[in-house]
Amino acid sequence: MTTGEIAELLNGKITGNANLEINSIGKIENAKPDQITFISNPLYEKYYGSTNAGAVLVSKDFKINNIRKEVTLIRVSDPYLSFLELIEKFDNENEEIETGISAQTSIADNVRLGDDIFIDDFVKIGKNSIIGENSKIYSNVTIDKNVLIGKNCIIYPNTVIFKNSNIGDNVIIHSGAVIGGDGFGQAKGEDGKYIKIPQKGSVKIDDDVEIGSNTNIDRATIGETIISRGVKIDNQVQIAHNVEIGEDTVIAAQTGIAGSTKIGKNCMIGGKVGIVGHIKICDNVIIGAATNISKSIDTPGIYTGYRGKPHRDDLKIEANLKKFLESN
Amino acid sequence: MTTGEIAELLNGKITGNANLEINSIGKIENAKPDQITFISNPLYEKYYGSTNAGAVLVSKDFKINNIRKEVTLIRVSDPYLSFLELIEKFDNENEEIETGISAQTSIADNVRLGDDIFIDDFVKIGKNSIIGENSKIYSNVTIDKNVLIGKNCIIYPNTVIFKNSNIGDNVIIHSGAVIGGDGFGQAKGEDGKYIKIPQKGSVKIDDDVEIGSNTNIDRATIGETIISRGVKIDNQVQIAHNVEIGEDTVIAAQTGIAGSTKIGKNCMIGGKVGIVGHIKICDNVIIGAATNISKSIDTPGIYTGYRGKPHRDDLKIEANLKKFLESN
Amino acid sequence: MTTGEIAELLNGKITGNANLEINSIGKIENAKPDQITFISNPLYEKYYGSTNAGAVLVSKDFKINNIRKEVTLIRVSDPYLSFLELIEKFDNENEEIETGISAQTSIADNVRLGDDIFIDDFVKIGKNSIIGENSKIYSNVTIDKNVLIGKNCIIYPNTVIFKNSNIGDNVIIHSGAVIGGDGFGQAKGEDGKYIKIPQKGSVKIDDDVEIGSNTNIDRATIGETIISRGVKIDNQVQIAHNVEIGEDTVIAAQTGIAGSTKIGKNCMIGGKVGIVGHIKICDNVIIGAATNISKSIDTPGIYTGYRGKPHRDDLKIEANLKKFLESN
Repeated sequence: MTTGEIAELLNGKITGNANLEINSIGKIENAKPDQITFISNPLYEKYYGSTNAGAVLVSKDFKINNIRKEVTLIRVSDPYLSFLELIEKFDNENEEIETGISAQTSIADNVRLGDDIFIDDFVKIGKNSIIGENSKIYSNVTIDKNVLIGKNCIIYPNTVIFKNSNIGDNVIIHSGAVIGGDGFGQAKGEDGKYIKIPQKGSVKIDDDVEIGSNTNIDRATIGETIISRGVKIDNQVQIAHNVEIGEDTVIAAQTGIAGSTKIGKNCMIGGKVGIVGHIKICDNVIIGAATNISKSIDTPGIYTGYRGKPHRDDLKIEANLKKFLESN
Repeated sequence: MTTGEIAELLNGKITGNANLEINSIGKIENAKPDQITFISNPLYEKYYGSTNAGAVLVSKDFKINNIRKEVTLIRVSDPYLSFLELIEKFDNENEEIETGISAQTSIADNVRLGDDIFIDDFVKIGKNSIIGENSKIYSNVTIDKNVLIGKNCIIYPNTVIFKNSNIGDNVIIHSGAVIGGDGFGQAKGEDGKYIKIPQKGSVKIDDDVEIGSNTNIDRATIGETIISRGVKIDNQVQIAHNVEIGEDTVIAAQTGIAGSTKIGKNCMIGGKVGIVGHIKICDNVIIGAATNISKSIDTPGIYTGYRGKPHRDDLKIEANLKKFLESN
Repeated sequence: MTTGEIAELLNGKITGNANLEINSIGKIENAKPDQITFISNPLYEKYYGSTNAGAVLVSKDFKINNIRKEVTLIRVSDPYLSFLELIEKFDNENEEIETGISAQTSIADNVRLGDDIFIDDFVKIGKNSIIGENSKIYSNVTIDKNVLIGKNCIIYPNTVIFKNSNIGDNVIIHSGAVIGGDGFGQAKGEDGKYIKIPQKGSVKIDDDVEIGSNTNIDRATIGETIISRGVKIDNQVQIAHNVEIGEDTVIAAQTGIAGSTKIGKNCMIGGKVGIVGHIKICDNVIIGAATNISKSIDTPGIYTGYRGKPHRDDLKIEANLKKFLESN
């Protein structure tokens, strides 16, 4: 593919050689002359002077001091999104399409499987479960009974999905995730010993959700734990029983959300965040990494600090503390 | 089941219609007229005025301002515990009892299996292991050699239990848990490279323990890592080698306990707590969520804060800091 | 084995009975007369007076006030390392060597397997993968296509290793670990919905690395996530895409390292540490447990505190705060 063809594909404007043959993509630090790379983050602009890439995707207003003839620029409105598009184009792996059902599986008689499905080795699927067309279930996955999985889903190896879970279309669940395990409910009896609270609800995961490796989403005690459309969850996240997460919210790794808490739409929750149970976080809240939230939040904005506060207050506390401590 | 029959079952006192037919349980916010729900937490009392539930379990001293004829009340001493009892009654799933041994397993010749056992597909059990009557081992579980599992245990899918583990009766282990993996022991050699310290001990889990999904309990270097009777552990908890946890202690999700630490009885450890190695926590200690403990605790009470302190001191620090910062 | 033979083996100097028969190893608190134990940490010297061990490994300058005739001492230069050597000697399990390939596996036709390999039940290995001699792959492991695993590796049950991963010699991967899962990359589109960023890179793990249970190491977006020779990683650690970790660095449990961060050699990172993405940590840095690092570190030393600071500064802040609060 030539730089000219790439510029046309991405609706970009070319500066330099339009006939350069590009064979793959690369990182700006170590790309080769037959590769294309991109500059989106200003921190990476410094590499323009030294990159060996044959071509670079840059923004429309990218400024250059020293013109390098050997580097062809393609100006686009969003270099990063354009680069993502190219990644798919240049994916040379020629992935063959995996379909069919392995002979080494255990699929209950009345399971319903859609067309063009792939079921890998050592998968177990319990009775009454339904899996939509074009979904892929990889090796060593357990799908319990009465589970509904939509179309175009990918369930990676060693995942467990418990009974009555209801999973939409285009959902990706990464390895080692556990969906619909018992919530942690223990009632203290009169003798001081704990009695297990039966967990009789289920998990509902809407369309376009991605769930990271070794992440847990517990079933509700009664009712549903709800992960709404477009939610993206990273690895090692703990979502307790009866939690509800609103559309297009993203949650980074190692965050934990305790039981019955409701989180709004379009929130961004950093890594290692802790959120107590039975509170509400409104829409459009950003929570910084390693922040703990113990009260409901009803104002959009950024919250940070060990005891999560509005970010401005948190910065002020840090500055005041610093001033005080330096004067002592 | 009628409200009258329920009241009799729970030894409760009825106010309203004793002949109302109740078919299932529900949450107070969205229960239907043929459902029963409960009010235990005062925060939920506000729903009394609007619930569509046919019946509500309430405490003996529950006060109502506006009597609603369409809602039958059943007064009991502990509405929550009574509700748990009802959950089991109304569990309409009619779970068939799973027993038998799948043909798609790998069970060593001299494994001993109790009566009424269930072993699901793709389970591997190593030699000399013993599993007690009425226990259930679900799909894709690996049980290593010389493992002892008691009666009435449930081992959920994709769990791994390593050699020489000794597990009591009525133990529940959730999916993805790893019991008896090597402790993390690395000795620095003279050349600066680490030498793996052999982990030759084992894990002992007593009766009535519950262990959450993707939780790890490492084997001892020498001797045993001990989880005592009645301990309840949530998801994604890390218990290092040679840790000992006393009876009826509960540990919430994402907590980590470093090597050789001993924790007493009846402790409550919140989520995301970190406890360093080689210390002792006495009985009846409560540790708040996201608290870090770096020294032994020998006085029962509540401990909170980034650098875990007695809760009263922690609150005072917060208050003083606030006062100071507001005056600056 | 007699105490005399042990002294000879360890190049130690004996005080006491050189003909005592020792049958196994024990912990100093509960060792028996036919066992040998050790004292390395001064905190354990107090047990010398009461141990029932027949023999104790001690350092060359170990001082005793009350000589106990029934306890034979063997003086060595490093009692701990000598004890590790003995652990292996006294390992009475007589582990038979596991080799061979189970019939209940799914191994693609063109997989190449070295000599003396062990492949356990319900293992899946994808096409073009290569596994070196003397490596062991335990039950329910999934190895994707184009994976390269070196010699003498141990891959414990229920681990997943994704395509194109490149793993060196003498690597140990514990149960439930996921190597090469997709990095967490989500680009926000103009409609506010997230677009998954394709993760096309891979994971490279060099020789002598150990990786804990339920730990995740994500594949790079482009290029490689790199774990260098001799790195030791504990359980439940999250290593995001494009992270690089230098030689002989150790990382304790529940730590998370965000995308593209580079960590130097010989670092020691405590448990529950959080490190943001796109920063650099230089060689020889020690980060205390539960510390969060949000900026690059270019000076070796110890860093601690919720907002990671040089340890000296952190201690000063704590002391000043204490002083201030006590005076208020």
